[in-house]
Amino acid sequence: MDKFLYGGDYNPEQWLDQPEILKQDLELMKKAKINTVTLGTFSWASIEPREGEYHFEWLDKIFDDIYQMGGHVILATPSGGRPQWMSQKYSEVNQVDEYGRRHTHGFRQNHCYSSPIYRQETQKINTILAKRYGKHPALLMWHVSNEFGGQCFCDLCQENWRKWLQNKYQTLDNLNKAWYLRVWSGMYSDWSQVLPPNPLGETKVHGMDLDWKRFVTAMTIDFYESEAKPLREITPDIPITTNFMAEGLDKGDYYPITGLDYSQFAKHVDVVSWDSYPAWHNDYETLAETAMKSAYTHDCFYSLKHKPFLIMESTPSCINSQQYNKSKRPGMNILSSLQQIAHGSDSTLYFQIRQAQGNSEKFHGGVIGHDGSSENRVYQEVAQYGSKLENIAEIKGAIKKPKVGIYYDWESNWAFNRGGAFGRPTRLGIQTLQKHYSIFWGQDIACEIINGEDDFTKYDLIIAPIMYMYRDATVTKLEKFVKAGGTLVGSYFTGMADEYDRVILNGLPTKLRELFGINTKEIDTLYPKQHNHVEFGDKSYVTKDYNQIIDTTTAKVLGKYQDDFYQDTPAVVKNEFGQGTTYYLATRLGRDFLKEFYRPIIDKLQLANDFVLDSKYEVSCQVRIKNGVRYYFLMNFSEDQQVIHTRCESTNVEDGSTVGTEIHLEKYGCLVLKLNE
Amino acid sequence: MDKFLYGGDYNPEQWLDQPEILKQDLELMKKAKINTVTLGTFSWASIEPREGEYHFEWLDKIFDDIYQMGGHVILATPSGGRPQWMSQKYSEVNQVDEYGRRHTHGFRQNHCYSSPIYRQETQKINTILAKRYGKHPALLMWHVSNEFGGQCFCDLCQENWRKWLQNKYQTLDNLNKAWYLRVWSGMYSDWSQVLPPNPLGETKVHGMDLDWKRFVTAMTIDFYESEAKPLREITPDIPITTNFMAEGLDKGDYYPITGLDYSQFAKHVDVVSWDSYPAWHNDYETLAETAMKSAYTHDCFYSLKHKPFLIMESTPSCINSQQYNKSKRPGMNILSSLQQIAHGSDSTLYFQIRQAQGNSEKFHGGVIGHDGSSENRVYQEVAQYGSKLENIAEIKGAIKKPKVGIYYDWESNWAFNRGGAFGRPTRLGIQTLQKHYSIFWGQDIACEIINGEDDFTKYDLIIAPIMYMYRDATVTKLEKFVKAGGTLVGSYFTGMADEYDRVILNGLPTKLRELFGINTKEIDTLYPKQHNHVEFGDKSYVTKDYNQIIDTTTAKVLGKYQDDFYQDTPAVVKNEFGQGTTYYLATRLGRDFLKEFYRPIIDKLQLANDFVLDSKYEVSCQVRIKNGVRYYFLMNFSEDQQVIHTRCESTNVEDGSTVGTEIHLEKYGCLVLKLNE
Amino acid sequence: MDKFLYGGDYNPEQWLDQPEILKQDLELMKKAKINTVTLGTFSWASIEPREGEYHFEWLDKIFDDIYQMGGHVILATPSGGRPQWMSQKYSEVNQVDEYGRRHTHGFRQNHCYSSPIYRQETQKINTILAKRYGKHPALLMWHVSNEFGGQCFCDLCQENWRKWLQNKYQTLDNLNKAWYLRVWSGMYSDWSQVLPPNPLGETKVHGMDLDWKRFVTAMTIDFYESEAKPLREITPDIPITTNFMAEGLDKGDYYPITGLDYSQFAKHVDVVSWDSYPAWHNDYETLAETAMKSAYTHDCFYSLKHKPFLIMESTPSCINSQQYNKSKRPGMNILSSLQQIAHGSDSTLYFQIRQAQGNSEKFHGGVIGHDGSSENRVYQEVAQYGSKLENIAEIKGAIKKPKVGIYYDWESNWAFNRGGAFGRPTRLGIQTLQKHYSIFWGQDIACEIINGEDDFTKYDLIIAPIMYMYRDATVTKLEKFVKAGGTLVGSYFTGMADEYDRVILNGLPTKLRELFGINTKEIDTLYPKQHNHVEFGDKSYVTKDYNQIIDTTTAKVLGKYQDDFYQDTPAVVKNEFGQGTTYYLATRLGRDFLKEFYRPIIDKLQLANDFVLDSKYEVSCQVRIKNGVRYYFLMNFSEDQQVIHTRCESTNVEDGSTVGTEIHLEKYGCLVLKLNE
Ligand SMILES: [Zn+2]
Ligand SMILES: [Zn+2]
Ligand SMILES: [Zn+2]
Repeated sequence: MDKFLYGGDYNPEQWLDQPEILKQDLELMKKAKINTVTLGTFSWASIEPREGEYHFEWLDKIFDDIYQMGGHVILATPSGGRPQWMSQKYSEVNQVDEYGRRHTHGFRQNHCYSSPIYRQETQKINTILAKRYGKHPALLMWHVSNEFGGQCFCDLCQENWRKWLQNKYQTLDNLNKAWYLRVWSGMYSDWSQVLPPNPLGETKVHGMDLDWKRFVTAMTIDFYESEAKPLREITPDIPITTNFMAEGLDKGDYYPITGLDYSQFAKHVDVVSWDSYPAWHNDYETLAETAMKSAYTHDCFYSLKHKPFLIMESTPSCINSQQYNKSKRPGMNILSSLQQIAHGSDSTLYFQIRQAQGNSEKFHGGVIGHDGSSENRVYQEVAQYGSKLENIAEIKGAIKKPKVGIYYDWESNWAFNRGGAFGRPTRLGIQTLQKHYSIFWGQDIACEIINGEDDFTKYDLIIAPIMYMYRDATVTKLEKFVKAGGTLVGSYFTGMADEYDRVILNGLPTKLRELFGINTKEIDTLYPKQHNHVEFGDKSYVTKDYNQIIDTTTAKVLGKYQDDFYQDTPAVVKNEFGQGTTYYLATRLGRDFLKEFYRPIIDKLQLANDFVLDSKYEVSCQVRIKNGVRYYFLMNFSEDQQVIHTRCESTNVEDGSTVGTEIHLEKYGCLVLKLNE
Repeated sequence: MDKFLYGGDYNPEQWLDQPEILKQDLELMKKAKINTVTLGTFSWASIEPREGEYHFEWLDKIFDDIYQMGGHVILATPSGGRPQWMSQKYSEVNQVDEYGRRHTHGFRQNHCYSSPIYRQETQKINTILAKRYGKHPALLMWHVSNEFGGQCFCDLCQENWRKWLQNKYQTLDNLNKAWYLRVWSGMYSDWSQVLPPNPLGETKVHGMDLDWKRFVTAMTIDFYESEAKPLREITPDIPITTNFMAEGLDKGDYYPITGLDYSQFAKHVDVVSWDSYPAWHNDYETLAETAMKSAYTHDCFYSLKHKPFLIMESTPSCINSQQYNKSKRPGMNILSSLQQIAHGSDSTLYFQIRQAQGNSEKFHGGVIGHDGSSENRVYQEVAQYGSKLENIAEIKGAIKKPKVGIYYDWESNWAFNRGGAFGRPTRLGIQTLQKHYSIFWGQDIACEIINGEDDFTKYDLIIAPIMYMYRDATVTKLEKFVKAGGTLVGSYFTGMADEYDRVILNGLPTKLRELFGINTKEIDTLYPKQHNHVEFGDKSYVTKDYNQIIDTTTAKVLGKYQDDFYQDTPAVVKNEFGQGTTYYLATRLGRDFLKEFYRPIIDKLQLANDFVLDSKYEVSCQVRIKNGVRYYFLMNFSEDQQVIHTRCESTNVEDGSTVGTEIHLEKYGCLVLKLNE
Repeated sequence: MDKFLYGGDYNPEQWLDQPEILKQDLELMKKAKINTVTLGTFSWASIEPREGEYHFEWLDKIFDDIYQMGGHVILATPSGGRPQWMSQKYSEVNQVDEYGRRHTHGFRQNHCYSSPIYRQETQKINTILAKRYGKHPALLMWHVSNEFGGQCFCDLCQENWRKWLQNKYQTLDNLNKAWYLRVWSGMYSDWSQVLPPNPLGETKVHGMDLDWKRFVTAMTIDFYESEAKPLREITPDIPITTNFMAEGLDKGDYYPITGLDYSQFAKHVDVVSWDSYPAWHNDYETLAETAMKSAYTHDCFYSLKHKPFLIMESTPSCINSQQYNKSKRPGMNILSSLQQIAHGSDSTLYFQIRQAQGNSEKFHGGVIGHDGSSENRVYQEVAQYGSKLENIAEIKGAIKKPKVGIYYDWESNWAFNRGGAFGRPTRLGIQTLQKHYSIFWGQDIACEIINGEDDFTKYDLIIAPIMYMYRDATVTKLEKFVKAGGTLVGSYFTGMADEYDRVILNGLPTKLRELFGINTKEIDTLYPKQHNHVEFGDKSYVTKDYNQIIDTTTAKVLGKYQDDFYQDTPAVVKNEFGQGTTYYLATRLGRDFLKEFYRPIIDKLQLANDFVLDSKYEVSCQVRIKNGVRYYFLMNFSEDQQVIHTRCESTNVEDGSTVGTEIHLEKYGCLVLKLNE
């Protein structure tokens, strides 16, 4: 399709006995320029209400109706919610929790991913769906299951766990050493002794926890692949995805979920898609701050494949699951949806087209509300945005070319957060990445969130704070990157543990010592009310949480601690290495420091936005590039009118008009402009 | 009995080996003018220590002793705590919890209400008790079990749950639709698949949760009826009650418990009785505020039958179960006990006559303390109040005739609190009712707390905020009420869901639109730090939590929002409907607003107290009426002396003296006055 | 050994494949003057990796290596962590939790203490160890298991519970009365009905809970004795200990654990040892306050046998288990280690010699860090302290002779904390003891923490606040103590319950009435924001939490309440009794009051420190005595230089130099001085 995908989850099966509603849906979708719906999510019981009894007539009809409307279908496999009869007949399909309790039917996404029967049943229904709809002209994409997550502790999963470990470690001796089991006399003498970490057994072994998280990711992908197999065979040309997620709202945070290693999972999907639900208009941060976290998360998902992604779900008004679920104010749905596009989405899809009448998500926002009215404010803004999207359709597929990479390693984050010691509430690994990110986002400098498998040569600057887990291959790549002229920023908590979360002996690994020109010593953990200060430039900055004591070998000291027993020792250092430069931040500093710290780096590397002359934190400018044209998205994440100035005149993509160099953006205002490269 | 019931729970079985204590009890009771004791609560093991081995001699004796003292007995059936041998021999009598775990003996009130054996055992012991004591001249009333509550998830209860549902829904198709189970593919294909909501199965289905709560109420009543059956047969003239409860102290609240629908349960008792334990003298609110919540709760229980009720339990000094358990200050037991009478109680009964020496409630206050002394401050105040009660005995049986009804619907409250969306911590349905109530209580205007089955024609004003669940019959009655000249106040969150907690489509139901003269649109949920303002009269009032956007059809706008995108739209409206008037409050406003809002309504409807000229929040005046005499209870809920003025002179009920129109009430002071109508 | 034990836990089994590390360990230990290591803790799987397959070669070697270094070995029995094969083969060795769930292998110290198999297995391995190493010249002491704790609810333990109760109560009637089971109809009719307190059964019976805690202590000791048996038989000359613990850091507190009655357990060890982990440098209290709590805890452990104890574990830098784990600043390890010695320790032992490379405690501080470097700051301070310890070796074995005893009763504290009523968050029994203690510690007056079995005649002043559980034998001893001229301080919450936690009837027991010259009445519980005041001397002091109302018989009133209905009644009284004096504090008062209150008592009893003239809270002076020499430890628990003055010149123990009467102590500075008596 040469348009952005616009639409969302649609569950006509909830309204089958009200055909006038289904008719109204089609009319309202069309009017709103909706061109794509996701069908089939949680439809299993509607398709197969009793074992072997299939009902496709309603789905056939909606497929045809959508097609006749000119629309497309993303078809979800129904495994996220199996039918009651299956949970009842085959108890093995139900998850067993960490206490060994077999659950009964309920909630969703709580199946065992090892169960042969569940794998067989999902393959069967997927096969049927692929055969029936694989050639339907409306079919655009497969959406496997829904929001994968969870874990199972049943005997089958335990058996798989042991097999996975045997395959990885080969011998028990290797396992015992990797998990460092001589502590507390925990060495295994037989494979059958190895159980999953669980509160009625072992909960303290760091290496086991780390491997269990790896195993959960592996099993989840394995189950996904089992589902995908018949789809790949029967419909080789239809791309396959599954919707990823973000988390953290309960703590005022927002970032991709940490429970599954999406850097691995992404290799198995044809296109990355995810469900975007930031907490707009909250009372604990500015709107721009919410926008920054949202931007970070979009950039994470873009970076998984360095390609445009899909927003598979979002809300046109309010969500349902938080403590406070505030509606988007007028203008915010357009602004926030356009932010998705600005950061690399090729879709705006909502959950959901029509608000459910009952059950647990009934007050979650919908394109069509309970009033079914086209006069509804939400619907009207959805329709207005539909036109906007059509007007900028030429941007679909455009890419991004960031010169800044922020390093994030799922496994390292698992290990880093797992341990005792230091400050439990102040680990804040991802929040630290976001703090660095915010400096660049605030200046309209694009970033990617990268990992060790990425090509580092694309970047001028790599920011890798808290690289807790040492990976020799990655560090070797970083060495090469810097030697060739790259700039690298590292920090405290770097190079501390190996891939089994065992401490690396004898201090900072040699390669890192040379790269940063330092030796590291102890890390001083601060209680929340304790602080140190760092002198940098001609100012003093407050430190918190962690101060690492270091000394320099080849590095030059840029900032020193001002207090405590390590007063006057280095806190911020810079090292020339090959053609490049590295920086090491030995302590946790605030954004005020980071802004000053990055200023000369940004200047030297010429990273500044090439269009906006006076970047403001409240006004974001993001760039996508296609066929030699640079598309600039200007977005005002504030309640005030904002004025910005651009390097040159540009063209408004929506209407082709010429836009001058002084641009006024109303509250929540947004503009899409373009320049030829 | 022509006196108020005075006394309380008495457990002589704890002191059988100390006959001098039992003798002292009788003397001290007599001296305190105690005329009623509740026997038998938790006495089962004392009566039947081993299966089939009965010991009534001690109970016979105490029955006779009480009678000889001139007292009466409320006899409790012992089912609240069964004997150990029964829990051991018949495991089915023990409750199974939501995780499917059969409990062993312990605590209290934790039996299975389905168990045929437990029903048989309780009927057996009740039959024996009724036969033995049914004709005893001291027997005044049956007190079935104690503080019913709890729920059971055993197979028998699950079977009853399915039967109850089959009876209600007839077909699975009806059930699937009512619970809106197409969400997440949850439709049942066989009745055997239906389990109770539970954390190892289904926890997310709103309709299921609502029906489960209804079922728990139904089963509790069914068990109560099973207990009552032999009592009704053998002693048809002895009234039967069970003691209801209040809750909320742990959150600083206080109101009837919400877990059981007392509006249904009340139909099955001959007289409403309840256990009253407000948190007097706390540090989070004024004494008057505690008094207001206490008054609200008394009025709820009065309203269940619109008849005098009994206080079955209260404390003469301190309770035992809260974080802080403060003793009543001197004077407070008399004041707070008289408040019970003022609001319609025909008794003051304490838990308990003699403080237990051991176990979990040993420091809960008692009429006779651990010191066994008549010099004890608590005892002396109990005795002083005993005389007071005798002096006002003529009031017993007097009724109330409020003109204000506050609408409260147990089921609606269940559904309203269940959902996600909006603000989870800010639902505050009952607290909102109490906020309205406080305006009237503060002006000494009597209210009842009514439900849809009540006769609305008795009232001039019905206040029905947050009528979340739409009940057509109730709304039809409200229409009729207003048409005939009544005044109705409604609010945001009204008419939103049907009796299955499914959203009502197409906006506010037509009858409510016409009644209030409005259409409703979206509800804007506010975070705690966010506010709007409403202009009303010549002042501006702060809103919080929820602002509903509405437009008017026939209604007249009294107040408008002052901020945000719905600035200048209606927030408070008034509608003439038939002979009556309705008001709709679209937003959550404070007491400052409500006081101004209700002022003209109170004036117009002439609701003001007919006795006190200058009502103060700290001084409460409540009225009971009997044989053409109006009894006024004046109560000072403050630490200061208070002066109030009355319309005319009156007579002090206690001593027959004439009381002038300027009345001085000392700290915690109270007076009972009368006027002929 | 004629030196202080210096060293700590050493786990060479973690480094067997890196012999160069083991070699380095020996060198670094020697250099730091380490003379003692604890081996064998959690080494079972290294010794017996498969059933019956033993590997002692590595342990033999380390034993010899340590001996050759001139060091000694404390040999731990390995029962704290059994091998996986044992947990797998004999499931009965694994603990069953309070929900009846048999745990699988994991964590540590989670075995069943009843299991015949586990007792047999531990005796077997202990026998082997005793036979193999019992005569090894390096063997200094047995360290049975590690940090005993936990409880088991398996059938075997339940059987032991019933046996223990049968033995204690003989008849069910006695049990039913002791536990006061007529409340809620809980009387047993058969012993088999008696289960442990547990959340799926009985949780409310105070007497049961109290006995269960006694039983847990008894079973833990019984298991310990079972382990000790072969050691006593085979190596009758080797002393046996087990390491005790402190708790409370999670609430900002610090004191010996309350879950096990160490006053009983101490009788079974040859020398008391414990693991000392205060939260130095936190952000919620001053350093001196942390030092005071640490001092209190040391004094508790000294008092268990009124003899020098051992510090079995401590950290040279940071701990691992708290929310924030801050490193000790330079100087603090020496200061805090010396504080242990000052209060009666004959050792400084660390956990651990070499930091583990992996698993749950990998970042807990070690003498030898992950860098393995002698340049490490922590190591260097350890080595510096090692020299210091050698210089003061003459002090080893020196005792203390406090004249102040603070009364603490483990069982009373259990009962006191158990009940409802009063203020649940404000019981604070031990914190109240510490408040009294702090007055004396702040003035460098030594205290012991004593219990009813101690010899009271050694003391001039006994402080016994909140003596909730009445023990006639103890009170009789107190009577005798006061009659003979002793001074006693008591308080509210005294003499309230018997040994079954049943309330004592008829008020304060006669002996206590006479002792204090008062009668007690009600206790007024205050909410946190509520206060009263007491006039004492010419000042007014704020009370909180509890005000008891009393009247005096023979006592003289020193202070009266100033507010509320008990205004002008006694709050602080003094009573002459025999040759002695008692004081009763009827209310909870602050340190400002206690300081004034104790001033004349300290003067009269001449309790002031005999060396320091101007005691400061920040500078602690503790005394140990040996062979007619008084050793004074001066310790500066502040960040500032401190000056203090002493009665006379003294000798620096470390270098024999003469020290003048004005002493300057640097930040964290400490001096060890001596005077001939
Ligand atoms: Zn599984
Ligand atoms: Zn049941
Ligand atoms: Zn056991």
